[in-house]
Amino acid sequence: MKSSGGTRRSLPRSGAMRTVVLLLPCALVALPVWAQDEGAGGPSTLDVVWTLIAACMVFLMQAGFAAVEAGFTRAKNAVNIMMKNLMDFSVGSLGFFLVGFGLMFGASASGPLSGWIGTSGFALSGLGEDPWSYTFLLFQTVFAATAATIVSGAVAERVKFGSYLLYSAGITILIYPVFGSWAWGGLFNGGGWLESLGGGNEDAFLKPFADFAGSTVVHSVGGWLALAAAIVVGPRIGKYTQSGTPLAIPGHNIPLAAIGVFLLWFGWFGFNAGSTTAGVPEIGRIAVVTNLSAAAGAAAALATSWVWLKSADASMALNGALAGLVGITAGCATTTPFGAMAIGLVAGVLVVVSVIAFDAVLKIDDPVGAISVHGVCGAWGTLACGLFNAEAVIAGADASTGLFYGGGLGQFVSQAIGVAAAFLWAFGAGLALFWTIKKTVGLRVSPMEERRGLDVGEHGMEGYSGFQIFTTQ
Amino acid sequence: MKSSGGTRRSLPRSGAMRTVVLLLPCALVALPVWAQDEGAGGPSTLDVVWTLIAACMVFLMQAGFAAVEAGFTRAKNAVNIMMKNLMDFSVGSLGFFLVGFGLMFGASASGPLSGWIGTSGFALSGLGEDPWSYTFLLFQTVFAATAATIVSGAVAERVKFGSYLLYSAGITILIYPVFGSWAWGGLFNGGGWLESLGGGNEDAFLKPFADFAGSTVVHSVGGWLALAAAIVVGPRIGKYTQSGTPLAIPGHNIPLAAIGVFLLWFGWFGFNAGSTTAGVPEIGRIAVVTNLSAAAGAAAALATSWVWLKSADASMALNGALAGLVGITAGCATTTPFGAMAIGLVAGVLVVVSVIAFDAVLKIDDPVGAISVHGVCGAWGTLACGLFNAEAVIAGADASTGLFYGGGLGQFVSQAIGVAAAFLWAFGAGLALFWTIKKTVGLRVSPMEERRGLDVGEHGMEGYSGFQIFTTQ
Amino acid sequence: MKSSGGTRRSLPRSGAMRTVVLLLPCALVALPVWAQDEGAGGPSTLDVVWTLIAACMVFLMQAGFAAVEAGFTRAKNAVNIMMKNLMDFSVGSLGFFLVGFGLMFGASASGPLSGWIGTSGFALSGLGEDPWSYTFLLFQTVFAATAATIVSGAVAERVKFGSYLLYSAGITILIYPVFGSWAWGGLFNGGGWLESLGGGNEDAFLKPFADFAGSTVVHSVGGWLALAAAIVVGPRIGKYTQSGTPLAIPGHNIPLAAIGVFLLWFGWFGFNAGSTTAGVPEIGRIAVVTNLSAAAGAAAALATSWVWLKSADASMALNGALAGLVGITAGCATTTPFGAMAIGLVAGVLVVVSVIAFDAVLKIDDPVGAISVHGVCGAWGTLACGLFNAEAVIAGADASTGLFYGGGLGQFVSQAIGVAAAFLWAFGAGLALFWTIKKTVGLRVSPMEERRGLDVGEHGMEGYSGFQIFTTQ
Repeated sequence: MKSSGGTRRSLPRSGAMRTVVLLLPCALVALPVWAQDEGAGGPSTLDVVWTLIAACMVFLMQAGFAAVEAGFTRAKNAVNIMMKNLMDFSVGSLGFFLVGFGLMFGASASGPLSGWIGTSGFALSGLGEDPWSYTFLLFQTVFAATAATIVSGAVAERVKFGSYLLYSAGITILIYPVFGSWAWGGLFNGGGWLESLGGGNEDAFLKPFADFAGSTVVHSVGGWLALAAAIVVGPRIGKYTQSGTPLAIPGHNIPLAAIGVFLLWFGWFGFNAGSTTAGVPEIGRIAVVTNLSAAAGAAAALATSWVWLKSADASMALNGALAGLVGITAGCATTTPFGAMAIGLVAGVLVVVSVIAFDAVLKIDDPVGAISVHGVCGAWGTLACGLFNAEAVIAGADASTGLFYGGGLGQFVSQAIGVAAAFLWAFGAGLALFWTIKKTVGLRVSPMEERRGLDVGEHGMEGYSGFQIFTTQ
Repeated sequence: MKSSGGTRRSLPRSGAMRTVVLLLPCALVALPVWAQDEGAGGPSTLDVVWTLIAACMVFLMQAGFAAVEAGFTRAKNAVNIMMKNLMDFSVGSLGFFLVGFGLMFGASASGPLSGWIGTSGFALSGLGEDPWSYTFLLFQTVFAATAATIVSGAVAERVKFGSYLLYSAGITILIYPVFGSWAWGGLFNGGGWLESLGGGNEDAFLKPFADFAGSTVVHSVGGWLALAAAIVVGPRIGKYTQSGTPLAIPGHNIPLAAIGVFLLWFGWFGFNAGSTTAGVPEIGRIAVVTNLSAAAGAAAALATSWVWLKSADASMALNGALAGLVGITAGCATTTPFGAMAIGLVAGVLVVVSVIAFDAVLKIDDPVGAISVHGVCGAWGTLACGLFNAEAVIAGADASTGLFYGGGLGQFVSQAIGVAAAFLWAFGAGLALFWTIKKTVGLRVSPMEERRGLDVGEHGMEGYSGFQIFTTQ
Repeated sequence: MKSSGGTRRSLPRSGAMRTVVLLLPCALVALPVWAQDEGAGGPSTLDVVWTLIAACMVFLMQAGFAAVEAGFTRAKNAVNIMMKNLMDFSVGSLGFFLVGFGLMFGASASGPLSGWIGTSGFALSGLGEDPWSYTFLLFQTVFAATAATIVSGAVAERVKFGSYLLYSAGITILIYPVFGSWAWGGLFNGGGWLESLGGGNEDAFLKPFADFAGSTVVHSVGGWLALAAAIVVGPRIGKYTQSGTPLAIPGHNIPLAAIGVFLLWFGWFGFNAGSTTAGVPEIGRIAVVTNLSAAAGAAAALATSWVWLKSADASMALNGALAGLVGITAGCATTTPFGAMAIGLVAGVLVVVSVIAFDAVLKIDDPVGAISVHGVCGAWGTLACGLFNAEAVIAGADASTGLFYGGGLGQFVSQAIGVAAAFLWAFGAGLALFWTIKKTVGLRVSPMEERRGLDVGEHGMEGYSGFQIFTTQ
């Protein structure tokens, strides 16, 4: 038994194809192995064990998201937020198994849609014989659920529960996997169009779009969907004065939110290092750069808020850690520790500026800062690959693709194309989806229910029965 | 190094013995390897690493149970519930090491008790030389603690702390391991009587009782003990009006309960996929079907409560996820994804009906629904193996044992025998244990202490010092 | 592929050097492999996967510490405690990468400082080529952060946030790694002075200082720093009456504290079993003795409080579990299950006595008992190696080093030397550090801010907005 399988699946260390292959997320190149390379070189049992454990760690991020979102909002909506996070994962697990997985990873459509959508592997049809396909499915399921759950924070405290489930299903079944197929999918005939930028020619100006663990594929897509949702549903009652001044609506349980951030940080080790989908030595380096970027993000956001807002703001520091994690997700396999610290540092500053800009300038009400953390910092992290990718330094590749490491502008432009494509698709499809729901079954609860809280209105119970709680607004 | 050891230990993929062997829980067949097969074919270090990590994940379910039980009950008893969950694990760890493990996995007694009880291996005597025995012990310890802790939810808010510790020890030391030896034990001479149904003859009508990860061995046993305890201790003050109408006693911290469910779901991946006690490729499939059943359970319970109770009830949805997890535990290694979704779906409906039936019809006060989730859905999941086992489909066996896959009724009847045996033993032994405690040291706190809360009465402190809390009842 | 690498790295099972090698923490002997043994015998990918997962589990202990500390203190300081735990990890991760790691594990200084400090490997310079170095760095980073975070509990509710960050950086950058280099460092030329006791001569009276996973290196160092900090900063307002009688200041969220203990217990499996830094079969035994000691600690502390304090005290039981975990950390690889239970039992009694002694006799205000749990029980656990080390029994070594297993007093004396060195260094350096900060930027918030709570004063927000909370003091 070889310890980490064939060269296509593991993070390559040598060979002529190194530079190109390094840019392909292993999440993608993993799949052909079980589809094509029967016997020799398939995933080892160590790969299965590692990928499965990583998937479980990413699953626990659902608890982290739930805790962060509930903690940063009001007590009267805490049950509703927990339910959204429970049910979007449940509905998403079923929907992604039945439909989404095939759209994202199935054989690419022929004709004009080639490279734009997968068309096989629904419910693992034709793949169920191979044990690896299940492990891979679970890992991808928890990713899809992450993208979907990002939206719940931005629309917290005002969206109808039934409508939430409806569009959450739409995200995991359609919007997320379609974009995913552009960057990670199309395994059987040629790859998605984003991963095919440059046409497989190493000398081309454009390089294949690089997003190792999903700064764009997962986080920006989720963030731009959150932006569309926040715009369509509108701000919470009492968030803005009649003159448009934003009012703070403080969260009801900051310790819960902080525990949530720790859970997310923990899960992110699985998210990034697990995206190798192989038990290779490089997972240690990926985890280290992930950790350094998160640490730099928290420190930078704290410093920014301390200097700018004159307060060691807890919600900014917590979001700064998440910003660093989102930022490093694209380049976690291709950046140095110092590159990672730089990416996290910028993300930490950026998230503070962005949160305030959306709140006070654009007047888009995002109770937990999901748009800034996932959308904006996801875009930053993806672009940062074009600056900080250092394949030659860290993995002995012939050349690095990052501008700061002599790689020129090609990778950066490809990254910008991917970032723009993600925005156009996710924001556009999101607007259409939310607007359709708004005009049919309705998107928002009644003002009376919003004031009273969704816990009683939607679920017939209080989050904290027996406690004396003063309801704002 | 072979990746997954000998054929007896791993999930077999081919060979004449396949059908029978598939039905044996690997938790069981794992042990002879270190006892008998020195050198070649013993557990690999990957098996050790995987099983140990799975054991740690199952350990974290203790936190999940504590959070669910505390969240679903009143603030005045939260410390007491935390203490019960901490101490039943502590006492259970010591007791299972010293006594329970030997009763469950030791060499079977000779004479009339052959197949009914183990008699060696206490405190790992004679086994301590082999490193694998420790990993296996830890995995089994966290299982035993799960069975014991299930009871704490059903008797919450009214049982004396000292008495709780007493019977909790009785469960991990005696009641759980004795039943466990019938289904998983008896390693050294012939197996427990339940796993010997059919007499080792493939053509016999009865098939060996199948419970891969413990729908019955762990969950139903815990659930029927909970039923006995709830009956003997009686309902909480104020739970029923004089005319017998049940009154709702709302939980004090639903977000905590929801985080608990996420922790349980996370740990269940270790519970089910770890029951291979081997790092084999099939763990991915086990995890996927586990996830799909949980998702279907949550969705079905939500839908049932929405339609029937006219409310998207949070406690029902949370219990629905757990119901799906309990339900798939027996068949997680032998059912297809669609079978798993069906099992979870039924479990999700069943748990709602059962919770209401126990509460309103049988008038048995179970504050968290433990009897329904673990007892009823555990029985359902065990019976479901007789319907949905699809060994031929998913593992290339010669034949499936599930009725719906052409396996006839033999497996179903064996499952019914095991379910009935679990009920008779756990409920009967539980009644005897709880009744004895009630008549000697006493089982229930005084009415004054119950009204005031067990936190102050038993532990001299409040759970939420400083918070204004209105105590119901 | 060999399953667990060369003999130097794994826990050895045979050979003449066995006795000595067994006493070296594998955390230490792991490093030379990637530095020196290129190719053959280096860490396997399984070692990487196991060590990385263990590091992630230890990371989650940060959430556990945060929850325990917040839960055991008042609601008005909960945000501050969360922020301290978030930021000491963030700052510590950056500082340990840049400086601490090199001081601890780098090539030892030449001349008189030989054996007292490392001088290379800063920011992994010269090591970044080897993937293993990253995994090892991450594992050591989460250890360093553990030592630092211990202090936050002892000084909770009264220390300035900025000053906290300052000295927290000092701990991870300087104080912790310097002591660490004495016991675990000095990889490149001869080892630290503590691990060199006896001069490499098996027949010498003194044996190399033994602290497998850090009862002293991590926990006592953290505990003695906490003691220095608590002395320099002084007790909280209202903690002692004018006549010096201690008053109880109850924690605001015991369920949160209890969940924190479960998270710590979970993480401790990674802490102890992961300290092999190798996926070897012995990790199962290490996890089992860790679990038994924790269980015995919880049971003993509960019994002690029940008998002595006439109450089944929850905070004592919770701290008892932690005491058992701290106690077994040094000897987790070298003691039998019964030895572990004895160590945990003593730790559980000791922690109750110590908490009360510090509180009522020494009048040192330690809100969460950090000094007793980590300092006192860490010292006990380290000394206990000199009594309970049973290498001959559990690993087939030629002789055991524990007094109770015929090893004489040599090991015990070495342990006492190490314990004393840790106290002198950590307490002394801590006093100097905290005193310097106190006299320059200031260590303590104003009395008004302390009364109002640090959440509003330092971070401009409440932990539980909307809840009616009565603020004591």
